[in-house]
Amino acid sequence: MRPSQRRPDQLRQLRFTRGFTRHAEGSVLVEFGDTRVLCTASIEARVPPFLKGRGKGWITAEYGMLPRATGERMHREAARGKQGGRTLEIQRLIGRALRAAVDLSALGERTITLDCDVLQADGGTRTASITGAWVALRDAIDQLRAKGELAADPIQAQIAAVSVGIFEGTPVLDLDYAEDSSAETDMNLVMDGEGRFIEVQGTAEGQPFSRAELDALLEIGAAGIREIQTAQLAALGLPS
Amino acid sequence: MRPSQRRPDQLRQLRFTRGFTRHAEGSVLVEFGDTRVLCTASIEARVPPFLKGRGKGWITAEYGMLPRATGERMHREAARGKQGGRTLEIQRLIGRALRAAVDLSALGERTITLDCDVLQADGGTRTASITGAWVALRDAIDQLRAKGELAADPIQAQIAAVSVGIFEGTPVLDLDYAEDSSAETDMNLVMDGEGRFIEVQGTAEGQPFSRAELDALLEIGAAGIREIQTAQLAALGLPS
Amino acid sequence: MRPSQRRPDQLRQLRFTRGFTRHAEGSVLVEFGDTRVLCTASIEARVPPFLKGRGKGWITAEYGMLPRATGERMHREAARGKQGGRTLEIQRLIGRALRAAVDLSALGERTITLDCDVLQADGGTRTASITGAWVALRDAIDQLRAKGELAADPIQAQIAAVSVGIFEGTPVLDLDYAEDSSAETDMNLVMDGEGRFIEVQGTAEGQPFSRAELDALLEIGAAGIREIQTAQLAALGLPS
Amino acid sequence: MRPSQRRPDQLRQLRFTRGFTRHAEGSVLVEFGDTRVLCTASIEARVPPFLKGRGKGWITAEYGMLPRATGERMHREAARGKQGGRTLEIQRLIGRALRAAVDLSALGERTITLDCDVLQADGGTRTASITGAWVALRDAIDQLRAKGELAADPIQAQIAAVSVGIFEGTPVLDLDYAEDSSAETDMNLVMDGEGRFIEVQGTAEGQPFSRAELDALLEIGAAGIREIQTAQLAALGLPS
Amino acid sequence: MRPSQRRPDQLRQLRFTRGFTRHAEGSVLVEFGDTRVLCTASIEARVPPFLKGRGKGWITAEYGMLPRATGERMHREAARGKQGGRTLEIQRLIGRALRAAVDLSALGERTITLDCDVLQADGGTRTASITGAWVALRDAIDQLRAKGELAADPIQAQIAAVSVGIFEGTPVLDLDYAEDSSAETDMNLVMDGEGRFIEVQGTAEGQPFSRAELDALLEIGAAGIREIQTAQLAALGLPS
Amino acid sequence: MRPSQRRPDQLRQLRFTRGFTRHAEGSVLVEFGDTRVLCTASIEARVPPFLKGRGKGWITAEYGMLPRATGERMHREAARGKQGGRTLEIQRLIGRALRAAVDLSALGERTITLDCDVLQADGGTRTASITGAWVALRDAIDQLRAKGELAADPIQAQIAAVSVGIFEGTPVLDLDYAEDSSAETDMNLVMDGEGRFIEVQGTAEGQPFSRAELDALLEIGAAGIREIQTAQLAALGLPS
Repeated sequence: MRPSQRRPDQLRQLRFTRGFTRHAEGSVLVEFGDTRVLCTASIEARVPPFLKGRGKGWITAEYGMLPRATGERMHREAARGKQGGRTLEIQRLIGRALRAAVDLSALGERTITLDCDVLQADGGTRTASITGAWVALRDAIDQLRAKGELAADPIQAQIAAVSVGIFEGTPVLDLDYAEDSSAETDMNLVMDGEGRFIEVQGTAEGQPFSRAELDALLEIGAAGIREIQTAQLAALGLPS
Repeated sequence: MRPSQRRPDQLRQLRFTRGFTRHAEGSVLVEFGDTRVLCTASIEARVPPFLKGRGKGWITAEYGMLPRATGERMHREAARGKQGGRTLEIQRLIGRALRAAVDLSALGERTITLDCDVLQADGGTRTASITGAWVALRDAIDQLRAKGELAADPIQAQIAAVSVGIFEGTPVLDLDYAEDSSAETDMNLVMDGEGRFIEVQGTAEGQPFSRAELDALLEIGAAGIREIQTAQLAALGLPS
Repeated sequence: MRPSQRRPDQLRQLRFTRGFTRHAEGSVLVEFGDTRVLCTASIEARVPPFLKGRGKGWITAEYGMLPRATGERMHREAARGKQGGRTLEIQRLIGRALRAAVDLSALGERTITLDCDVLQADGGTRTASITGAWVALRDAIDQLRAKGELAADPIQAQIAAVSVGIFEGTPVLDLDYAEDSSAETDMNLVMDGEGRFIEVQGTAEGQPFSRAELDALLEIGAAGIREIQTAQLAALGLPS
Repeated sequence: MRPSQRRPDQLRQLRFTRGFTRHAEGSVLVEFGDTRVLCTASIEARVPPFLKGRGKGWITAEYGMLPRATGERMHREAARGKQGGRTLEIQRLIGRALRAAVDLSALGERTITLDCDVLQADGGTRTASITGAWVALRDAIDQLRAKGELAADPIQAQIAAVSVGIFEGTPVLDLDYAEDSSAETDMNLVMDGEGRFIEVQGTAEGQPFSRAELDALLEIGAAGIREIQTAQLAALGLPS
Repeated sequence: MRPSQRRPDQLRQLRFTRGFTRHAEGSVLVEFGDTRVLCTASIEARVPPFLKGRGKGWITAEYGMLPRATGERMHREAARGKQGGRTLEIQRLIGRALRAAVDLSALGERTITLDCDVLQADGGTRTASITGAWVALRDAIDQLRAKGELAADPIQAQIAAVSVGIFEGTPVLDLDYAEDSSAETDMNLVMDGEGRFIEVQGTAEGQPFSRAELDALLEIGAAGIREIQTAQLAALGLPS
Repeated sequence: MRPSQRRPDQLRQLRFTRGFTRHAEGSVLVEFGDTRVLCTASIEARVPPFLKGRGKGWITAEYGMLPRATGERMHREAARGKQGGRTLEIQRLIGRALRAAVDLSALGERTITLDCDVLQADGGTRTASITGAWVALRDAIDQLRAKGELAADPIQAQIAAVSVGIFEGTPVLDLDYAEDSSAETDMNLVMDGEGRFIEVQGTAEGQPFSRAELDALLEIGAAGIREIQTAQLAALGLPS
């Protein structure tokens, strides 16, 4: 039995609040149960130096946690003077995942920065970030399109992510903190709307995992992502 | 006429949402109109080195803005590797202001950290932070008291803050961003429940200000703070 | 009775040594009793990026203390790898105060940096810095004018600063370290030659202060600043 | 056809030079073709603060590249003042992988640091590092055992790693730089001696990948790791 | 002919002002012509970790230049967030030189920090720093001895330093900035009162130098140091 | 008797392995006994800002030690976030020494960076670095010349370096770690092919040294450098 009483293949309550703040071109509060992440998409008319003059755009991401998003207060990274390895790893993952959603040539010489700030953490913040950032990105690009600034829609894929893991011997979907902290295996999946993989990251925390276990995790993860994608589209008022 | 159509001595809509996040001992979302700051109070059973073994506690504060809390995206301080001078100045001010609220001996060997994170900025983030942090502090200390961990209430004063300024020649209360960015004079007041001053910080942005102007600002500021203090108590369900 | 035997409204011995070092365009050692600050004004034919091509100049300030300017040796900020919050706060104040002295358009595309380095500290280093920096700035601009590089005098105001505070219940002027470290209230005033305020920064260190106390502090501060301004002009050989 | 003329399931020439430097308790130069990484294992009789007094040891890793290990000179991270996100991500992966090899309780209160420094890079430096580090770790622990300092062998698993990817539509094993820089999908596998997974990290670089492609990559990867494990044991003079 | 009209073996005007600031145990302003360095010696009753509990003391040095000590304003190292290579090299040299003056066992568990801050630079700041720091150290230790805190005098040698160089083909003593910036060879000598070497640092700036040139430089340097040592003793009121 | 059984004027076994890695324009592993340093020369078609547009090139150096190059593991400078004073001092020395080898005008607007990374340390790493870097530089420039990119050979001098010191009262050549750590005096010499000095750096570690001792050290050092230069030329296949 899962601590939250969920079935092994059951997601937490999903919620997307679009327009959560008013300045950003896209601003979405995404909630996977008690995990709450504010995802904003900011459009700027510049590209990084390595893309200058090539007619292409760029998608990048930054990730942070408020110091008391967690059970015990963590150090503020700005005060310590550097982002930790975990933060850098997560924001690199978010950036890669969202770049897979976009035809950078169709975006033109613009940078879209996806800021994912965790207001409250209960496991799965990186996959919630990717899932919410895609909705914020969709909103930001729709705003550009509404202004007539883009000839074609640069979004070429729907991206969502979820965590799966082996908890007390059973493959489970969408781990919360209580499960995550004692799972034997932890895997993050990022997939597109066609059910193909963008990223697969599985780590044996306690015990190595077999090929059969890996297959089981991929199954329940793929099914969970289909549900999440349906929720993303519903939040945007788009047909699934 | 003020851009917001407010009267010169009129505050923006004030709102306090207690328990905005669930991990912190105190967690308050404070809103002064479109300025929204999440203030959390975290209690830890340790004190900084300079207070070790002296039987006293400590109150400190940290301040941050999410990169897209503002009209244009700002750099993330954690990514730049340092907190800017403005951030340090504000968090030092919040810390001083809240220490004035507390009898550190009655607190015992504990540190309470007030994290003030701006989710959306529209002027007056530092005064909103102080105002919200006091409510979060009250909640955190009440939680300690409810557990029977404190013999006496360490809170000795009610603290609130507001900005005042001279906008197009007129002293006005509680400036929003549109006013703040073109005000001739900008002043932040922090006061206690007896109408006494904890901090007065006035800066001539465009024009030096006379003693008469200073007096006028102090008047409308004091009246504004009384209103804010009434709202703080109401939010806490305390009599004013 | 004050530890220094001064009357409540009595300044310390003031001294300005112009040309204290020879490379800077303005170089003034300012002494308020035992507080000694070397203020240099350096002119460079460039402006910060945000002012490029706008035909205006810039005034900025940096502040430092030699490690053994104080009773106990402090860490060298260069060795620690960052300037502390107090240093940043002070240099931002000095910069704002001196910008109020200058018509930046009349300065042309030049930056003047005011370096205020405390050789010996005995309280009031920030107000001494502002007071000395104005004299150094006057000298630097006079040097530019003597070379015929400026059509009009960009200095539009005389700036001086002083600290006031409540020491053992009495409002006193120009606190030295012995007073400053036990004052209940500490206030820094920056004023122009017309007796108007550039900056008012009052902090309750021990006890909140009443409006009546604030008024008393403003009175003795304004009188003190008039005396300091007379001394500035005398040091420059200008009529008061 | 692969640029190196290898068959799709063919490894590069593998070489392990034990005792490459003389100070470290384990020192192995591992070569996967032209990729050359010096892996040293250093034993210290201390543990990080979070393990103090718990009778357990710790395994950690650090990774670096010499500035001219690559075709174009890269910045030296020590000179830039920080390790990049890629470096941190890789050294976190190496540390996790090697901790899976060791029973930390059997190690006692010791820290073993695995330094993996790339002398020459031609793709696959992170998997070469893990593979070489395991041999260095084996040597270091054997040295401890030879001195009679360990009651039991703390090594509980044989760890090796390899990269696989889809190059011009074909799943291939052990990508060199020419393949890696144009692969559509890139996957790193870390496995134990029982053929179970420690880490699976697959990234769609150009194109999302299907479940069938993932399965094909896992097949050739598992076979490649078996070959690498045979070579590790041969280098150590152990039976496979 | 030297730019300053000095003879090749002629020092600049030397001046030592003891007690230049009042807080430090030793405080000496040393002037070699227009080069002016404030050297303070600070005594603290602690030693660095590597000397804990060994009954010995430590001597260390820090060096800095005020930003406008030079003809063009330099960056403030505290603001840049690190000390440059030149600064670190100089303060390591000063520390080594002064440690040669002291019997660390006779000092007891104390650290003396020599801060050398250049108020005005005109060449030879590192040798002036060493020369002035020795006088400040002598004063600081005499203060300890006067208080009866030392059984024996820990100063075992008199240390002074000077620069020599080849300027327009001629070996010259005590180079000023005009000479230093165009010298072919630049050498810094640190010697004790017996005419023995503590440090010899010679660098070919433009041209390699021959053994004969080296010998000539050592000759005039040794003579110059004898003169400087006489001046040090005179400043201290000691017989030479 | 020296710990290594060498005669006082005997070098350690010298070895140069050219082409040790394949990407750099010059890549030399230099060995002085157990001290092994990888020296690479990297050519880039750019110059630092202060040389822009002046038709001249630049030579610079960076130095590092692998964390376990030494008997006890040292901190990795990249992980600590800064290069230590010793590292900066050494790389400044290497850069100065190699610039003396080159006519920067004949090099054209190119930068050559000499990276000297210590794989294994046994004393004398800085002099080995200079000696090996010259061979790598020679190779890199010969590669440019072979491509016809240089009209004339920019190398104008052969540079080599060695350490000498006084060990147990006797002047000895090329100190290894056992000698270096207990030598009374330590001197590094950099000389050109004409027997002239580029750099002389002598430090009294324990005892000041006399002029006679200095002369003896210079004698054996000069003889040692002649031998090293013969070995450099032999490694390059050039006549001595």
